[in-house]
Amino acid sequence: MTMSTPLTGVVPPVCTPLTPDREVDVPSLISLVDHLVAGGVHGLFVLGSSSEAAYLTDRQRRLVVESVVTHVGGRLPVLAGAIDMTTPRVLDHVAAVIGAGADGVVVTAPFYTSTHPAEIARHYRLIAERSPVPVVAYDLPVSVHTKLGPDLVLDLAAEGVLAGLKDSSGDQAGFRAVVTGARTRHDITGFSVLTGSELLVDSALAMGADGAVPGLANVDPAGYVRLYDLCRAGDWERARAEQDRLFALFGMVGAGAADGRMGGSSSALGAFKAALRLRGVIACGATAEPQVALSEDEVERVGKYLASAGLL
Amino acid sequence: MTMSTPLTGVVPPVCTPLTPDREVDVPSLISLVDHLVAGGVHGLFVLGSSSEAAYLTDRQRRLVVESVVTHVGGRLPVLAGAIDMTTPRVLDHVAAVIGAGADGVVVTAPFYTSTHPAEIARHYRLIAERSPVPVVAYDLPVSVHTKLGPDLVLDLAAEGVLAGLKDSSGDQAGFRAVVTGARTRHDITGFSVLTGSELLVDSALAMGADGAVPGLANVDPAGYVRLYDLCRAGDWERARAEQDRLFALFGMVGAGAADGRMGGSSSALGAFKAALRLRGVIACGATAEPQVALSEDEVERVGKYLASAGLL
Amino acid sequence: MTMSTPLTGVVPPVCTPLTPDREVDVPSLISLVDHLVAGGVHGLFVLGSSSEAAYLTDRQRRLVVESVVTHVGGRLPVLAGAIDMTTPRVLDHVAAVIGAGADGVVVTAPFYTSTHPAEIARHYRLIAERSPVPVVAYDLPVSVHTKLGPDLVLDLAAEGVLAGLKDSSGDQAGFRAVVTGARTRHDITGFSVLTGSELLVDSALAMGADGAVPGLANVDPAGYVRLYDLCRAGDWERARAEQDRLFALFGMVGAGAADGRMGGSSSALGAFKAALRLRGVIACGATAEPQVALSEDEVERVGKYLASAGLL
Amino acid sequence: MTMSTPLTGVVPPVCTPLTPDREVDVPSLISLVDHLVAGGVHGLFVLGSSSEAAYLTDRQRRLVVESVVTHVGGRLPVLAGAIDMTTPRVLDHVAAVIGAGADGVVVTAPFYTSTHPAEIARHYRLIAERSPVPVVAYDLPVSVHTKLGPDLVLDLAAEGVLAGLKDSSGDQAGFRAVVTGARTRHDITGFSVLTGSELLVDSALAMGADGAVPGLANVDPAGYVRLYDLCRAGDWERARAEQDRLFALFGMVGAGAADGRMGGSSSALGAFKAALRLRGVIACGATAEPQVALSEDEVERVGKYLASAGLL
Repeated sequence: MTMSTPLTGVVPPVCTPLTPDREVDVPSLISLVDHLVAGGVHGLFVLGSSSEAAYLTDRQRRLVVESVVTHVGGRLPVLAGAIDMTTPRVLDHVAAVIGAGADGVVVTAPFYTSTHPAEIARHYRLIAERSPVPVVAYDLPVSVHTKLGPDLVLDLAAEGVLAGLKDSSGDQAGFRAVVTGARTRHDITGFSVLTGSELLVDSALAMGADGAVPGLANVDPAGYVRLYDLCRAGDWERARAEQDRLFALFGMVGAGAADGRMGGSSSALGAFKAALRLRGVIACGATAEPQVALSEDEVERVGKYLASAGLL
Repeated sequence: MTMSTPLTGVVPPVCTPLTPDREVDVPSLISLVDHLVAGGVHGLFVLGSSSEAAYLTDRQRRLVVESVVTHVGGRLPVLAGAIDMTTPRVLDHVAAVIGAGADGVVVTAPFYTSTHPAEIARHYRLIAERSPVPVVAYDLPVSVHTKLGPDLVLDLAAEGVLAGLKDSSGDQAGFRAVVTGARTRHDITGFSVLTGSELLVDSALAMGADGAVPGLANVDPAGYVRLYDLCRAGDWERARAEQDRLFALFGMVGAGAADGRMGGSSSALGAFKAALRLRGVIACGATAEPQVALSEDEVERVGKYLASAGLL
Repeated sequence: MTMSTPLTGVVPPVCTPLTPDREVDVPSLISLVDHLVAGGVHGLFVLGSSSEAAYLTDRQRRLVVESVVTHVGGRLPVLAGAIDMTTPRVLDHVAAVIGAGADGVVVTAPFYTSTHPAEIARHYRLIAERSPVPVVAYDLPVSVHTKLGPDLVLDLAAEGVLAGLKDSSGDQAGFRAVVTGARTRHDITGFSVLTGSELLVDSALAMGADGAVPGLANVDPAGYVRLYDLCRAGDWERARAEQDRLFALFGMVGAGAADGRMGGSSSALGAFKAALRLRGVIACGATAEPQVALSEDEVERVGKYLASAGLL
Repeated sequence: MTMSTPLTGVVPPVCTPLTPDREVDVPSLISLVDHLVAGGVHGLFVLGSSSEAAYLTDRQRRLVVESVVTHVGGRLPVLAGAIDMTTPRVLDHVAAVIGAGADGVVVTAPFYTSTHPAEIARHYRLIAERSPVPVVAYDLPVSVHTKLGPDLVLDLAAEGVLAGLKDSSGDQAGFRAVVTGARTRHDITGFSVLTGSELLVDSALAMGADGAVPGLANVDPAGYVRLYDLCRAGDWERARAEQDRLFALFGMVGAGAADGRMGGSSSALGAFKAALRLRGVIACGATAEPQVALSEDEVERVGKYLASAGLL
């Protein structure tokens, strides 16, 4: 499996099922991959935010990539996040995930440190130089606290440094600038522009995006594939209806937010995992430390979202 | 060497000298430690922000701690940062730095992920449970993007989870709340409150703080020790004069900021290292990737700050 | 003219032409209104951000509303901003603009002061109580520094407090939540959801929005009306082409941003006014104090954007 | 009364007592002024943040200035805020407060609009040109969302544009840069640097600041005057004890924050006014709309702070 052509379609950021004592639950992970493949997804992205990459040790990260790559056996491209603070540390992760068989790497701008566009460009150039597989930029200002500017992304695409963008910035106008630039600039070819939004997939595809990387596709891969197919067919009305159904389903991420006793990550990742357990895909809904677990009531609330969306 | 009593005095966050090809320059690191010890400092903090911890690979981090601990040989306490995104990853670093001989660990709240006070408390509790050495909280909102609340810190101090605080938040009122709380709450003993500011050491000590962790003390350790001693002696007028001299010297951190071609980290860390090279302490001023290097003109500007402060 | 039915269509935030000595240039304002009406717009919004409401004195604000309302003579609905920090001050502006003939008022959440959702709700309720004309909420976090939550907006719509939303938040997912909620909640009728974006009008309308309030429609009203009509006709492909043309035209807002000598407001509002002057609609491109004026080169750059878009 | 010499000492931002129906309660305002004068304060600042200037209509603002200026009769300098979004609107307020007798005006950078250092400088220059009385810059990033850079302030001081700074930025290092610059730059004379902090007055004066503008001085003017005198006498130990007492008293600002049902302004201003009522200085604790009122329990909590500080 290579990524010689631009990546398109639905590429879920694969959740990382954990055992009650917070080890990677490999059988559940394999089951989840089977569930995604059965849903018709076009690629997999492991070690992203929905994968709790920020919470996994190096040993656990390696185990995730090896397990998924081995099980997929080349049927789909497998991208892997190489999430760390700066270039030297990211390069270690790039080597690790490629060693474990990843077909492409997904990399944010430097974080924790204060940074600058010139330093971000240098960061991606150094990584692309050392990476034998395509490098996809990951724009996630809520975590990284800088925004990748559209011109920076497009210039690095033209240089051949970047093979794609996963845009989780929430800035749809900036996203459109990249989509349009990638289509109209003569010095750019084969660049893949993917939205990280669960809620704007139809909009993104209507603008000309190549695909989507929605965390909620763990829970309902078939729904996102159906949405993708409707958009590709130009059936915007039914696409909107499907997107609206998924929009409502996404409400589950607030399951733990009612009384202010946990953060957004605990609530959203807890809900995705609770939903996967309720659907019988994974064995245990535990999230990594120090996240707070959903209560039984909150899990029940997740179940109601599944039921309303026709998934239980 | 243990940290059974609360840490006091000047505890510089030790820069990490690099070779031109960005390996740890151990002889320069040893020379820097000697320079700091000769300046009279009361402890050392390796793998902090001024140490470029965010840029060092795991291998390099371990080399730094081992080199410094071995060379210091128990003459001073050596704290080490365990800087990573979440509890499981921080725990790996805690094990590594303790294995390398650190006398205490310095830990931020979770970052990159969205978090919550309850999760931050759980994070520190889990780390303290597993750490045989004292845990110092590192409050650095500019990097971590959350602020440790004074009450949270004081409650964790009372529980015995935290042994100290390094406050680089810039929030002097919040700092004062911790200093005052640590002095007046009956359930807290032996808690060390340290300012991370270069510019407010006299103010912090006047409020009752225990010490300071100023990055600029790499460049002028004797100056900060003199400032500390003047404050301890209650000679506030001469302390202010010394602080004012160091305030002016700190202007060097803007050496690379004039034309907007680099970020704040490149400029500040580049200036500290240029100053150490100009003073003959380290061999090379290189900073880690992807930081931008100071130009010759900018290094010359650093030299003028040194000259004005009587350090060249 | 009343606003008894929900407002739909293209409702430009009308620029306020100024004389070289910064008085309202009433003849140019009338000429601009004629240009907009000739372009086919469906309503007018005076005293918004693109109108430099924040820069106009109370006397100037009154002159603007009276001039436009009188000239329009009921052919189109005229909304007016009542932009100030808190409820009592906003109420004074509401009375003034209604006295001057406005058909509806547009109001932000409190700003400058620290606020809270309960206080924002109370703010809108008090204003609606005292306003004989419909109240439209203006969501503009870049100025107001709070975001109006979708549920807050929808609940106030259901109560009859709010008649519409102008969303300039940049948060398309939140916008979609309001659009969808307004369509599906049984307790809401006649609520108008308008995007303030220049760049996502097709997306917004595809989601089910009622219209758009794009500043750039001052420059090219016919373009936005054409875009609106194409979307209403379901001709999404040609709509996208028109939106892409307008997206490129919008690049003019960066005309003054190249060398960092002015802020975003100076650059964007300066560009709109330069374009209106170049198109012969207004007499002078001056913006209000303390904004920095575009240079001749920068105005020339604006001209190139007009030429590329077929507007010169 | 003029401000020909730099302002020094304790200059409280005078609360604006309101009647239950939110009109200015002039007798209570006069009583409050008497209370402050009796406490020994060195000047008065009306129409600041603690005065709820952002909530007062133009008519109410004028009434406040006239009432206070007339009653004070030149015994103390009276500064007045001219708080609005941009230069033209601020100029109207400047004219109004000078017409009502203010001895100096206090002005923030532009807010609501996006701005730029060059525009901020122009803003202050235009205001100083038109103001026959001294102009004091008000640095309040929590409201204004830009920070006044120390070099900008000092350059405008050297130009004669600014007569002083009220720093409520919370950035003590930046504050120190202004204090030190004002003392050491040869082109600056008679510039007054005042801290807006309640909690760092001793620190600020130890650095060389000229005075303080603490909102809490409404409640305990004599305490702040005592603190000021101790600092001026160099009795830093007793100064710290007095500051610590006031630090504890300041805890009242959180009286309404416990259960998240109001914003910070409602809680802090509500507490100040409750304290003034409990101390018998004003008749009614009402705050302006749309702020949420403190409950009886919360007012009782305020009373406990007063009792602990020896003020009841």
